[in-house]
Amino acid sequence: MTDRIREFLRRREDDSPCVVVDLDIVRDNFEAFAKSLPDTSVYYAVKANPAPEILSLLENLGSSFDCASVGEIEMVLATGAAAERISYGNTIKKEKDIARAYQHGVRLFAVDCVEEVEKIARVAPDSKVYCRVLCDGAGAEWPLSRKFGCAPEMAPNVLEHAHRLGLTAYGVSFHVGSQQANLEAWDFALSMAAGVFQEMALRGIDLKMVNMGGGFPTRYLKDVPGVPSYGEAIFHALTKHFGNRLPSTIIEPGRGMVGNAGIIEAEVVLISRKSAEDEIRWVYLDIGKFQGLAETMDEAIRYPIRTPRDGDRTAPCVLAGPTCDSVDVLYEKTPYELPVSLSIGDKVLIEACGAYTTTYSTVGFNGFAPLASFVI
Amino acid sequence: MTDRIREFLRRREDDSPCVVVDLDIVRDNFEAFAKSLPDTSVYYAVKANPAPEILSLLENLGSSFDCASVGEIEMVLATGAAAERISYGNTIKKEKDIARAYQHGVRLFAVDCVEEVEKIARVAPDSKVYCRVLCDGAGAEWPLSRKFGCAPEMAPNVLEHAHRLGLTAYGVSFHVGSQQANLEAWDFALSMAAGVFQEMALRGIDLKMVNMGGGFPTRYLKDVPGVPSYGEAIFHALTKHFGNRLPSTIIEPGRGMVGNAGIIEAEVVLISRKSAEDEIRWVYLDIGKFQGLAETMDEAIRYPIRTPRDGDRTAPCVLAGPTCDSVDVLYEKTPYELPVSLSIGDKVLIEACGAYTTTYSTVGFNGFAPLASFVI
Repeated sequence: MTDRIREFLRRREDDSPCVVVDLDIVRDNFEAFAKSLPDTSVYYAVKANPAPEILSLLENLGSSFDCASVGEIEMVLATGAAAERISYGNTIKKEKDIARAYQHGVRLFAVDCVEEVEKIARVAPDSKVYCRVLCDGAGAEWPLSRKFGCAPEMAPNVLEHAHRLGLTAYGVSFHVGSQQANLEAWDFALSMAAGVFQEMALRGIDLKMVNMGGGFPTRYLKDVPGVPSYGEAIFHALTKHFGNRLPSTIIEPGRGMVGNAGIIEAEVVLISRKSAEDEIRWVYLDIGKFQGLAETMDEAIRYPIRTPRDGDRTAPCVLAGPTCDSVDVLYEKTPYELPVSLSIGDKVLIEACGAYTTTYSTVGFNGFAPLASFVI
Repeated sequence: MTDRIREFLRRREDDSPCVVVDLDIVRDNFEAFAKSLPDTSVYYAVKANPAPEILSLLENLGSSFDCASVGEIEMVLATGAAAERISYGNTIKKEKDIARAYQHGVRLFAVDCVEEVEKIARVAPDSKVYCRVLCDGAGAEWPLSRKFGCAPEMAPNVLEHAHRLGLTAYGVSFHVGSQQANLEAWDFALSMAAGVFQEMALRGIDLKMVNMGGGFPTRYLKDVPGVPSYGEAIFHALTKHFGNRLPSTIIEPGRGMVGNAGIIEAEVVLISRKSAEDEIRWVYLDIGKFQGLAETMDEAIRYPIRTPRDGDRTAPCVLAGPTCDSVDVLYEKTPYELPVSLSIGDKVLIEACGAYTTTYSTVGFNGFAPLASFVI
């Protein structure tokens, strides 16, 4: 919680739930990445929070951008950023969208199969492509599925295919899994990337770049290593696997860039029990899974919550959202400790909500408006 | 698939994914409910699909409406429906929203605890309230959580509290669980409701109404009983538990009213394998969990999918959406059989998508537009 956010909320008159993002924190985060990984380019993962004020700030600070769609590419270009600062990082693209990106000047594309390489060769000649390899994500709070990337032993064939079709076989990417707190994860992934570099060298093709993806965590209830620890671990793994022929490198922080910069203010709508003997209260907020808190799915992310009654005795409760949908429950398997004095109408602050909240909000499920967003 | 939808899609020029709902099917569904349960009032669950054309059709047909919020109440009033045809069925309401609904003329409210009764007594005097009781949902594809309703033995206290505060203790509601294919479920729930009626009669208060909720299924890949079977089972259970003093009854179909009336047209963006030895293809569509297919979560609902290659030999594939989000996978645990000749660029039709698609769509995750909707 920052003084600027506190002051903003104090003056706000509307009482619907909202998220407020403090750009000073985003700036601090960008500078921490730049300082801890001085030879690595930062490509902000736009999908984490595409608010125009955030994109403009990062454009001014010299960031590049990882985009998932033409829609995101156009949001970035609207800040005045040059197309050279954009990576079209989605491995799943319609050919017409690749063509539109190319017309916009984008020349850097992710692939994970020959089918995607062929689309790019047809409509985005002379572009650079990097091949995403599967990574097991061990140690991440949210290990990724096998959706993105190919087996490491297939990557050289994909890249060689690109080379033969006149594209620049540029490098390798991986993603160690979201909210990754195990610093060793990058070591394993970089050893795999180095293996692809070696195989390509044997085939006479020199790769240039390793895209180390995202995965940098935000502090929710548990402590996580700071950005400098990640910087050291990554630099160590790079020199271990690439020796003194270091590739150029990029990272794609999203959650790590904006997660801790945002706070959601919400209201307690109802507190009740299911029976006279029930030991656990149900606390219902005016925000839930469908208006921004989708990452509580399977209780994956446990947000810190502040209340005006903090300091009073606490007791466990089930925390739920306001919709008529029975899956709209935030924490039930592991109930949440909240003050017993908490009352209907109290405002609560949900911390570390700067990433993956506004864009996960539905258009209006149950007739509730999407999450209001303010960037200050 | 209807001729009208086929013709609409044939003429459409835009190639982004969309859902098309055929009002003729909605009309057929309404008439099936009206005919199978002639003494029961139909309250359409607006949250299933609040498209104005659907609301207007149902208003003309004489339907009433189950609303989850003031937003939905205002959508229904915009069709010209009288406020007496609205039930504010969410048990979780801000006091100021109850007051707004009351100003709009709404007089029927759901509750499941004394705290909610007190809000209604303060700002919506002379209203009718019904108490929702917990129901275990056995047999439903999606058993509900304990989020809504109180233990049946608590309901008389909640209703008596309402009576003492000057409200009309009007009845009982339950919900047997979504996509409920077990006809016995209503028998169990109605026996519980009858128990509450008896206890209230002992306390000198005559309840009038049983709200039997929704749960009526849509046919996805598996067959489900037809509406007449539900009508018979419900009528049988009502007479068994209430004898010849039948209460007035309402039902709240949502999925059962519009589910089979809508078709999504989508496009195959990519087909690939993760390694040379991989036996399973990955098929990526231009629609996924974040643009309308949220109900594939945990592979709960298995939509029928038609392709232009139907009849060719099939093989299993993993089916996924287009976003850079690793949870955006539709069917993986149980792969989906699709023709081996399926190709990038093919259009596919996803059936039974009229309910819980448009409103579950995110505002723009990954820069993709929300699901386009057409009602014809």
